[in-house]
Amino acid sequence: MTKKSKEGITFKKEENFSEWYSEIVQKADLADIRFGIQGFIVHKPWGFLILRKIYEYLEKEVESQNHLPFLFPIAVKEKNLKKEKEHAGFTPEVFWVSEAGDKKIEERFALRPTGEAQIYPVYSLWFRSHKDLPFKGYQSRITVFRNEMTTRPFLRGREFMFFETHDVFNTHEEAKQQIEDDLDTCKKVIYDKIKIPFYYFKRPTWDKFKGADETFTPDTLMPDGKRNQLASTHDLGHNFAKAYDIKVVGKDGKENYVWQTCFGPGIWKIMAALIGIHGDDKGLILPFDMAPLQIVIIPITFGKKDDKLMKKAKEMESKIKKEGYKVKMDERDESPGFKYHHWELLGVPLRIELGQNEMKGNSLTLSLRTEDKKRKIKNKELMSSIKKLSLKLDKDIKNKADDYFKNNTKNAYSIKDLKSLIEKNKGFVKVPFCSVDKDGEKCADILKFETEGGSVCGTLYPKEEKVTSNQRCIVCNKKANHIVYVAKSY
Amino acid sequence: MTKKSKEGITFKKEENFSEWYSEIVQKADLADIRFGIQGFIVHKPWGFLILRKIYEYLEKEVESQNHLPFLFPIAVKEKNLKKEKEHAGFTPEVFWVSEAGDKKIEERFALRPTGEAQIYPVYSLWFRSHKDLPFKGYQSRITVFRNEMTTRPFLRGREFMFFETHDVFNTHEEAKQQIEDDLDTCKKVIYDKIKIPFYYFKRPTWDKFKGADETFTPDTLMPDGKRNQLASTHDLGHNFAKAYDIKVVGKDGKENYVWQTCFGPGIWKIMAALIGIHGDDKGLILPFDMAPLQIVIIPITFGKKDDKLMKKAKEMESKIKKEGYKVKMDERDESPGFKYHHWELLGVPLRIELGQNEMKGNSLTLSLRTEDKKRKIKNKELMSSIKKLSLKLDKDIKNKADDYFKNNTKNAYSIKDLKSLIEKNKGFVKVPFCSVDKDGEKCADILKFETEGGSVCGTLYPKEEKVTSNQRCIVCNKKANHIVYVAKSY
Repeated sequence: MTKKSKEGITFKKEENFSEWYSEIVQKADLADIRFGIQGFIVHKPWGFLILRKIYEYLEKEVESQNHLPFLFPIAVKEKNLKKEKEHAGFTPEVFWVSEAGDKKIEERFALRPTGEAQIYPVYSLWFRSHKDLPFKGYQSRITVFRNEMTTRPFLRGREFMFFETHDVFNTHEEAKQQIEDDLDTCKKVIYDKIKIPFYYFKRPTWDKFKGADETFTPDTLMPDGKRNQLASTHDLGHNFAKAYDIKVVGKDGKENYVWQTCFGPGIWKIMAALIGIHGDDKGLILPFDMAPLQIVIIPITFGKKDDKLMKKAKEMESKIKKEGYKVKMDERDESPGFKYHHWELLGVPLRIELGQNEMKGNSLTLSLRTEDKKRKIKNKELMSSIKKLSLKLDKDIKNKADDYFKNNTKNAYSIKDLKSLIEKNKGFVKVPFCSVDKDGEKCADILKFETEGGSVCGTLYPKEEKVTSNQRCIVCNKKANHIVYVAKSY
Repeated sequence: MTKKSKEGITFKKEENFSEWYSEIVQKADLADIRFGIQGFIVHKPWGFLILRKIYEYLEKEVESQNHLPFLFPIAVKEKNLKKEKEHAGFTPEVFWVSEAGDKKIEERFALRPTGEAQIYPVYSLWFRSHKDLPFKGYQSRITVFRNEMTTRPFLRGREFMFFETHDVFNTHEEAKQQIEDDLDTCKKVIYDKIKIPFYYFKRPTWDKFKGADETFTPDTLMPDGKRNQLASTHDLGHNFAKAYDIKVVGKDGKENYVWQTCFGPGIWKIMAALIGIHGDDKGLILPFDMAPLQIVIIPITFGKKDDKLMKKAKEMESKIKKEGYKVKMDERDESPGFKYHHWELLGVPLRIELGQNEMKGNSLTLSLRTEDKKRKIKNKELMSSIKKLSLKLDKDIKNKADDYFKNNTKNAYSIKDLKSLIEKNKGFVKVPFCSVDKDGEKCADILKFETEGGSVCGTLYPKEEKVTSNQRCIVCNKKANHIVYVAKSY
């Protein structure tokens, strides 16, 4: 990269989110799209460190629920994929490995589009008795493959990052409890840690995962007003157990099909939300704990050598490091302004400037990534200021995201109003609707056509909003039985 | 798995290492080879947790050397693979993705056999100025693919676990220093943590990595007397820089090819060594810090309900957990004997028995995985005993491995002696040899033929053993210039 291309974001997020997003992905060292195979991107160090943090949060949560990690191959047998076809339906999108060296291989295999078709046939070998259950397994830090037509970093790829749990129970009650635990994981990680607000939706029948009895998803809103589904958790019932013959002998001595759930947080989708929702025209904004570098120290020397100042800055660096922070002194031979912009672009939360003024006055200048001002503090206040400002940063990020999210949910009571709100392209619209079962699909299709792409996300979970007795479905005008959320989606 | 098949190892390690190894891999919950595609295995939870620990050790070490993590796609462009051909030569073994859904894809791509051909073309885009260097990057927790004919869990697979650093420098001196740091990483991780002894070899010219100027490897010895190469680090010189056009503008304003190194510890090979070298006829043996479960508490109730005892055991579990140990009370409805064998098989370092005798006498019975005895201790000595015994375990493991390694390096001064030592199939043999450069290859070929597979590993590094002036090459009888190590290999 030439130095010029490194210099800041040129598009405005409010004016052109799409270009702004593409630019920040490249310039903030998140991904390199020049790998040369469409939809396969290089996760660059800064981006990878943020993604790794998302993985770490999730791993910690699911392990605290006694999930055990494992790793399945990248391959799926064609035979097993065919069985899955009617349940998951990924077959049209899979990549096939059909040659090795200069020969055709005897039995071609697919690159996994998701885990079910590789994991469940093996589960049918692992469990024999009710005593073997519950079993909770997960794989993390893997990638999966789908031959998507259009691709975009962190939103849609032919290879993208994956995380999945696959749980097996003796009873439906345990399975349903796991769904609640999965949703709780989303709250703890995506909202509490990453500060991304979302609604939990229970998906309408026609839009759930094919092999699931019920599907639940936490969905957020991107700055262009489109819904971004951040994860999904599925009550699989006996569907896959029957397809892959997963049975255990119960206490009563009889063979029973197991109950299954699976949960897949979208690592990429969460990353896209983090970039899009928190970022601003200067670049990334990262919650304090997520930043690969939390504090940068900039010595202001104006090109002159100043050993005393450099020594002081170095001492400060090791003092801050000792407190457990990720800190770095930027010693590069560049101007302070260049450095400010560089670290703002990458989203480093806190900057400390140390120049002659600061040396004389025994004071320091601090700048927080979410503020447009400089703060003068006394040297001895450094540690308490870092603590205080790190909390303020997280609060700033959370408040901004919450406000944006809250302000972009509207109500509509006619298809005309809905159309107008959706056309403005700003977020969720709540509407009265006839049915979220199979018989509501026709209305959902008409709604999509009329609004040029608005889709029924589902009903709020766990507490569905009440419909008053006189409300009518905005499409068919029959009695409304649900308040559903509508939005355009990626 | 039926209960029966879980019950212990039936082969003796000393008598039939190969069958013993296959059995322990299956029974100790390390891998499932029933996935249905040859050479693609399922890494089961217990095995995966151990492998993850190996990854964690390595990640910590390379990051302390300022390596940055990244993630490249699983794909390699055919064009880039062709350029690599003469340097790495993996092309005959690669898997090709040539179909998607029901269509042929326009430009087929390969599954990465290693990182060079995917990473270095991108490196040529990243670095422009000497200021951009040094750059040290690595990827961890990935798998790579080679269409091997014979496969074996953790020794040879068509998909296997990988870890690789790819470093770029302005000067050859820095590159050479990195080689030393890589070798140091091997010592810190493979020997200090995992307790696997090895020799550092400098590979003979004919057996180095094709694209490297020099290759260095830490090699250990498996219980069947075969050499197991645990890692390799390569001084790549300008070879790949020239193939992929990686140049930077130096201080002098001129464009120069960069200097490169790469380092690849064999995650699987290290695992195979851990299983093979430390394990015994009861099962796995794991260094204390590596064990997914360090301490198991077995309440001895003889099928009766004993709330008081269970409560005491539960209290002990949480007390030990608070000290930071990985501990579990085994509450399963199985006999104590069944549980002892189960946890010994998995290599849990320390077992605590708690029964009526222990309750009465206010004492506990402890068993260490490396000992064949039970220790009675007073309740109040519990924490100090855990500390003491964890250290003893690691020392036992290390001493046993060191002894085995030391006792299996012999000397030979004639091809006849070498042949007889190699036929006994027990380890390394040191022999005087003419040359480790190109002109020694013919002697190495003859040596391999004569010994039915013994190969020249290389010379000891960094301190090559001295040859006395009257020593002759055991093959050609010319003046010997090196002492080389010979062994059979996997």
